[in-house]
Amino acid sequence: MHHEEHLKSSDMLRDIVIGMSDGLTVPFALAAGLSGAVDSTAVIVLAGMAEIAAGSIAMGLGGFLAGKTEQDHYNSELKKEYWEVDNLPEKERDEVRDFFQTLGLSKEVQDKAVDVLTKDKDCWVEFMMKHELGLDKPDPKRARKSAFNIGSSYIVGGLVPLSPYFFIHDAVEALKISVVITLICLFIFGFFKSKITGVNAWTGGLKVMMIGAAAAGAAFGIARLIEAG
Amino acid sequence: MHHEEHLKSSDMLRDIVIGMSDGLTVPFALAAGLSGAVDSTAVIVLAGMAEIAAGSIAMGLGGFLAGKTEQDHYNSELKKEYWEVDNLPEKERDEVRDFFQTLGLSKEVQDKAVDVLTKDKDCWVEFMMKHELGLDKPDPKRARKSAFNIGSSYIVGGLVPLSPYFFIHDAVEALKISVVITLICLFIFGFFKSKITGVNAWTGGLKVMMIGAAAAGAAFGIARLIEAG
Repeated sequence: MHHEEHLKSSDMLRDIVIGMSDGLTVPFALAAGLSGAVDSTAVIVLAGMAEIAAGSIAMGLGGFLAGKTEQDHYNSELKKEYWEVDNLPEKERDEVRDFFQTLGLSKEVQDKAVDVLTKDKDCWVEFMMKHELGLDKPDPKRARKSAFNIGSSYIVGGLVPLSPYFFIHDAVEALKISVVITLICLFIFGFFKSKITGVNAWTGGLKVMMIGAAAAGAAFGIARLIEAG
Repeated sequence: MHHEEHLKSSDMLRDIVIGMSDGLTVPFALAAGLSGAVDSTAVIVLAGMAEIAAGSIAMGLGGFLAGKTEQDHYNSELKKEYWEVDNLPEKERDEVRDFFQTLGLSKEVQDKAVDVLTKDKDCWVEFMMKHELGLDKPDPKRARKSAFNIGSSYIVGGLVPLSPYFFIHDAVEALKISVVITLICLFIFGFFKSKITGVNAWTGGLKVMMIGAAAAGAAFGIARLIEAG
């Protein structure tokens, strides 16, 4: 089953995609929104940096928690399966048989398959975990790696749209440059993300770019409305 | 295999968790950060509302895209499998056999299982999709539902920490109330989220609350540093 290894090696990519996609979009939209309502870039840099700090920590720790929860969930289900195999072996044998029955195998083949699989307790439990519950053993370092990858991708992504505001003191001028470089980065990001997932890269890049533009447009509109109201 | 239905019915819950978890945390942290650096709540409301607009649209459209990508990925893999079954039936038969070999079944049982499964083309392809690639058929309305659920949860979550700033004009006073109500909401949210995922609800609530507090603390610190520098 080559699919799993493929999935595991792409865990890091998935984390980068999670962090970068929000990191490029939300600080960009926030800065764009504020550019429509305040003149000084000092407030925008302040809000943008606070957002990047908040977002990277929230998402990074969120990824850490998700990794830990996955691990805990796996361990608690594993314990349950061992208990069931020890205490309700007949019920568990029936579940293995059900699996092969669902595949449409004959009664005789089912019995043979069940006999082989229930011979070794560890194999039996592993089979139940994988095919009854659909759970693969998670990497124990996954949570920490995930937190780091998501958090740092968010920071890198967030600094892109914010960088013009560091150097240009007119908010609208900085916004123009921010829009150009961020939309380019969103397109490139969407392009490669789509290449990895195997969908059309050009439309993928365009879609990601349009999400960023929509979010920035909405933030700009809302900020304008509040400022005017 | 009861696990899948369980997964599907919890898709909505997962979306709400995704939206609410960031919605409660990031606008909270942003507002807290700005409270340490600006006196007037007007700027905080402005930045907070821009953030909620940006975040809900970015995350909602992100969810939409993820749903669409999942659907596209499934369809493209489905087409590939049909093509392979039509054009490389021997290779595909071997893959079915490999699956049963990995389970440790005897040669004879493997052959019988392969014969049954490859009789009907649709069943054969479905088997390959599910057990070789680990893909379940996605709900076609999933992308739109997901976008709505994530986006609205983000808005609901984000208005909680921001609400005190609407009514109180002193930023530090508003922050105090925002901290209290948001930490309570984060705890309640984490509590029920953990109940659903089956991990300890009290520690789960505490962890989610601590992520929010850490993000808010970091944003506060960063904003203070920038303001002072």
